[in-house]
Amino acid sequence: MSAYQAPLADMRFALFDVLDAGRTFERLGFADATRDVLDAVLEEGARFAETVLAPLNAVGDREGCALDRDTGAVTTPAGFKQAYAQYVEGGWPALTAPVEFGGQGLPHALGVPLKEMIDAANLSWGNFPLLSHGATEALLHHGEPWQREAFLKPLVEGRWTGTMCLTEPHCGSDLGLLKTRAEPQADGSYAITGTKIFITAGEHDFTDNIVHLVLARLPDAPAGSRGISLFVVPKVKVGRDGAPGERNAVRCGSLEHKMGIHGSATCVMNFDGAQGWRVGQPHKGLAAMFTMMNTARLAVGLQGLGLSDRALQNALRYARERLQMRAPSGPRYPDKPADPIVVHPDVRRMLLTCKALVEGGRVLGYDAGLQVDIAAHAPDAAEREQAEALLGLLTPIVKACLTEWGVECTYHALQCFGGHGYIAEHGMEQLARDARITTLYEGTTGIQALDLLGRKIVQLQGAGLRVLLARIEAFCDAHAGNAALAEFVGPLRAKAAEWQHLTQRIVARAAGNAEEIGAAAYDYLLYSGYVALAYCWARSVAAAEARGSQALKDDKRATARFYFARVLPRTLAHAAAIESGLAALPELDG
Amino acid sequence: MSAYQAPLADMRFALFDVLDAGRTFERLGFADATRDVLDAVLEEGARFAETVLAPLNAVGDREGCALDRDTGAVTTPAGFKQAYAQYVEGGWPALTAPVEFGGQGLPHALGVPLKEMIDAANLSWGNFPLLSHGATEALLHHGEPWQREAFLKPLVEGRWTGTMCLTEPHCGSDLGLLKTRAEPQADGSYAITGTKIFITAGEHDFTDNIVHLVLARLPDAPAGSRGISLFVVPKVKVGRDGAPGERNAVRCGSLEHKMGIHGSATCVMNFDGAQGWRVGQPHKGLAAMFTMMNTARLAVGLQGLGLSDRALQNALRYARERLQMRAPSGPRYPDKPADPIVVHPDVRRMLLTCKALVEGGRVLGYDAGLQVDIAAHAPDAAEREQAEALLGLLTPIVKACLTEWGVECTYHALQCFGGHGYIAEHGMEQLARDARITTLYEGTTGIQALDLLGRKIVQLQGAGLRVLLARIEAFCDAHAGNAALAEFVGPLRAKAAEWQHLTQRIVARAAGNAEEIGAAAYDYLLYSGYVALAYCWARSVAAAEARGSQALKDDKRATARFYFARVLPRTLAHAAAIESGLAALPELDG
Repeated sequence: MSAYQAPLADMRFALFDVLDAGRTFERLGFADATRDVLDAVLEEGARFAETVLAPLNAVGDREGCALDRDTGAVTTPAGFKQAYAQYVEGGWPALTAPVEFGGQGLPHALGVPLKEMIDAANLSWGNFPLLSHGATEALLHHGEPWQREAFLKPLVEGRWTGTMCLTEPHCGSDLGLLKTRAEPQADGSYAITGTKIFITAGEHDFTDNIVHLVLARLPDAPAGSRGISLFVVPKVKVGRDGAPGERNAVRCGSLEHKMGIHGSATCVMNFDGAQGWRVGQPHKGLAAMFTMMNTARLAVGLQGLGLSDRALQNALRYARERLQMRAPSGPRYPDKPADPIVVHPDVRRMLLTCKALVEGGRVLGYDAGLQVDIAAHAPDAAEREQAEALLGLLTPIVKACLTEWGVECTYHALQCFGGHGYIAEHGMEQLARDARITTLYEGTTGIQALDLLGRKIVQLQGAGLRVLLARIEAFCDAHAGNAALAEFVGPLRAKAAEWQHLTQRIVARAAGNAEEIGAAAYDYLLYSGYVALAYCWARSVAAAEARGSQALKDDKRATARFYFARVLPRTLAHAAAIESGLAALPELDG
Repeated sequence: MSAYQAPLADMRFALFDVLDAGRTFERLGFADATRDVLDAVLEEGARFAETVLAPLNAVGDREGCALDRDTGAVTTPAGFKQAYAQYVEGGWPALTAPVEFGGQGLPHALGVPLKEMIDAANLSWGNFPLLSHGATEALLHHGEPWQREAFLKPLVEGRWTGTMCLTEPHCGSDLGLLKTRAEPQADGSYAITGTKIFITAGEHDFTDNIVHLVLARLPDAPAGSRGISLFVVPKVKVGRDGAPGERNAVRCGSLEHKMGIHGSATCVMNFDGAQGWRVGQPHKGLAAMFTMMNTARLAVGLQGLGLSDRALQNALRYARERLQMRAPSGPRYPDKPADPIVVHPDVRRMLLTCKALVEGGRVLGYDAGLQVDIAAHAPDAAEREQAEALLGLLTPIVKACLTEWGVECTYHALQCFGGHGYIAEHGMEQLARDARITTLYEGTTGIQALDLLGRKIVQLQGAGLRVLLARIEAFCDAHAGNAALAEFVGPLRAKAAEWQHLTQRIVARAAGNAEEIGAAAYDYLLYSGYVALAYCWARSVAAAEARGSQALKDDKRATARFYFARVLPRTLAHAAAIESGLAALPELDG
């Protein structure tokens, strides 16, 4: 089994030293979010993740979930339900939720490291409470007062969980094709009928009720994505007074057999005239659902980060213990029968790639989390707007890059174990299988790439990129005379300029042919991620220089050097691919 | 379940049109290897792979192998044993084996596409007969006459299978650490005692006997890798007259639970004073074992190729069928509710990456196979030597790159399916899990990288690279005036020159510090693979231009263009990483 220890020191470094979140929280009016409180929350979260969730990770993989086909009930792996009870008892579901609905009102950015810990400890388990947050957001922003009253408190308390019911067998990325119907009823409710697939936590034994947020079509709906409405469909009916009624006509039809996240219930949900209530305006459901999706996309990025970190921790330990061969220049540990494999430069290459992607990715993911708070709470409208634009840019980058890097890091970490990595007992192969879902759900990497280039750059005219490039420039200017930063500031400034020029050229090409966006999108996304990460690494070195111990300074500088020397050059390949454009992508219709 | 159709047309194109294997076979004296015979063999092999093996692929994954702990017997998945009986009946084990031991004496290079088909159809099954070939080679080159008589015929006929017993719990890549003991007995045999792990097909129900080739230490053996001898240890004892005796003291102690290749029996083998016979000189076992390992490494490369091709076939079909969204520039199929996803440039990017790596990799892998024949049978000693040097260079490239690309292609292909790729029923996730072993066994990618740079380039002074670079230069010269090739010849010539200079710089750096080899090895290996593949693609275009239909010409040119524009630029990142050297790889001893 793989071990997990929450990287509290590096989490604090990223949040408080690199991103200066403490001051930001204060400025945003989070009066309760004192450093003492935040530290206590992080430590308690680490304890929960390490001692309650992590030991259940292999159990979940082995046992999976079970469906009773007669009743439609789903049994979760041994210990999962009890862990959820502890989670609720600890008040975790309420952490960042609004105070008026029973939440603790702490910053979203504090929930981010907690999410990382939970997913690193047990991704399958983490998926059960995951979408409650999105359901809360959707109801908060689009629900009627009685809906907020009836559904939000139980969701915030964790007494109920939420789902997002979007996908149907014939429509995944293209929600315009969906067929689930909503027939208006005399009492103002709707009868929902249709089949939804890939519903995470669609059914389970954690709670008495489950709140499904469902996309469906009204009878008079126009075709395509402009004819979709959003409904709240509880597993157990809920009256306008919040009182629980009878069992609703929604039921789990089957569980998917998946490559990984076996402990997570991925359900086919059958709605058979189930009672639902419209949330928000008719035919505007997609926009409302996007409220949930953006939050979920950032959360999935953190899943990639958490799995990467757990994989790295185990690979590093193994590489320090496993004795094979001698260092190329002669024995380093002559008293042992062989040297630990960490002495081999190629093993270090794999470990350092993970370390650079994990620690840099942490700054990137946490920065996006911080923008959520700023966008919601900054006193100044211009600042809120800037944060919103930056968040829009960062969301697809965080979602796609942290998950692609999750696949890569779990690959490297498994590889460090040699053949032993392929064997179930070390738990490394589970991390690799679990990580594989993250580049698929909540929008594949290709979908994120289109969101970044097609929407955030071309449609929205790159507002978010301008914010980020201005910040990079300001950082480079601020450290222009800083000898300790010189080796990073120069290359970072050059890359940022290249990013800008590359963007301008793509936008110009796209104006001539919209297909050019699709041709460049993936490589542009990865390119953007690597440059953004270079900024994170330069900031990390600056923060360590300003506030860190000598050991931390050395560590951050060495890892940043590795990143700039051996990972950032991947931008060369991505830039070349971008420049080659549509011409090099022949049709394959067959 | 994923489908598989042997790509006979492209196999023939690679073997006969690009590599001109027909003429080579003739020149090497393979009188029976007429084009008619070769075509018939390929077609019959395709039929066997498609109709017998492919349908058992998902079965093997679901059922796995089972060990009876009381008897040590292993039961293989339903149908596996019957498929093996058909394989033997068809004479497949004897195909490329020497005529004097019952083989058909056909070229090794003909066995290569057959191996690709078998592994694409059912990798787990393919692992059972895989090592018989290596055992045959080891006995042929190092066995005493009675050993060859007693063991070779049953191996060649397929009545018995072979294994390679190298790894022990504490030693994988570092065989110098192995502890298995061999005590000389009065009758000239040895009593073998020790535990071997990760033994592919160590036990099964296909055949009456299994021939284990085992590395062990004699009592007077020097420490380290110079004290290892090779032994043949049959499951059922065999007298010097070849007559079967009683059950030997070797037994399967457990089966590993693995990420993939569930249908393949990966055994812990316990030798408890088992009767063995020394093969070759005392303490020279490692060299003898390398005879087996090189063959096995090429074979594992083909596994990566086969899985990549199967993954691509299924992704391409799915992308042409799955309807989601419209092409960016407007509907392509307005009569359908949406366009097939193959119209999206980013989906094509994934498919074309696979296509470029598969079809180019096929030429690369088959070329290595052809060098085996030339090295063994060319009339001219200088030609044999050149082929041997080239084979030495290509072996780690084929093993490592085709398997790394196998991981990549199964990743892309799964990604084309979106969330459906993660579900077991489409079979894509099995391909990804199965592919993951190939970069680990028979020497990890890191070990191949050290073999390439440390041994083939530095120690052997790059003899193989000189052969390959001379051929690339000759090719470029021959096509210097060929307008149809101009877009490829220029970049290829430039990359070959860069490869040479990069090599010279690494060799110079390594002379100062042996650790520099390890620091550069992985990136040098991948860099080499991409340049070698550029040569394969240029040759493919040339062959299509010379002998292909217009459709083939267009197809090969378009794919080659994609390769040069969007894949070959990865060399930029690898070159930068190589140049950064050891300085960017800090110690991590902790």
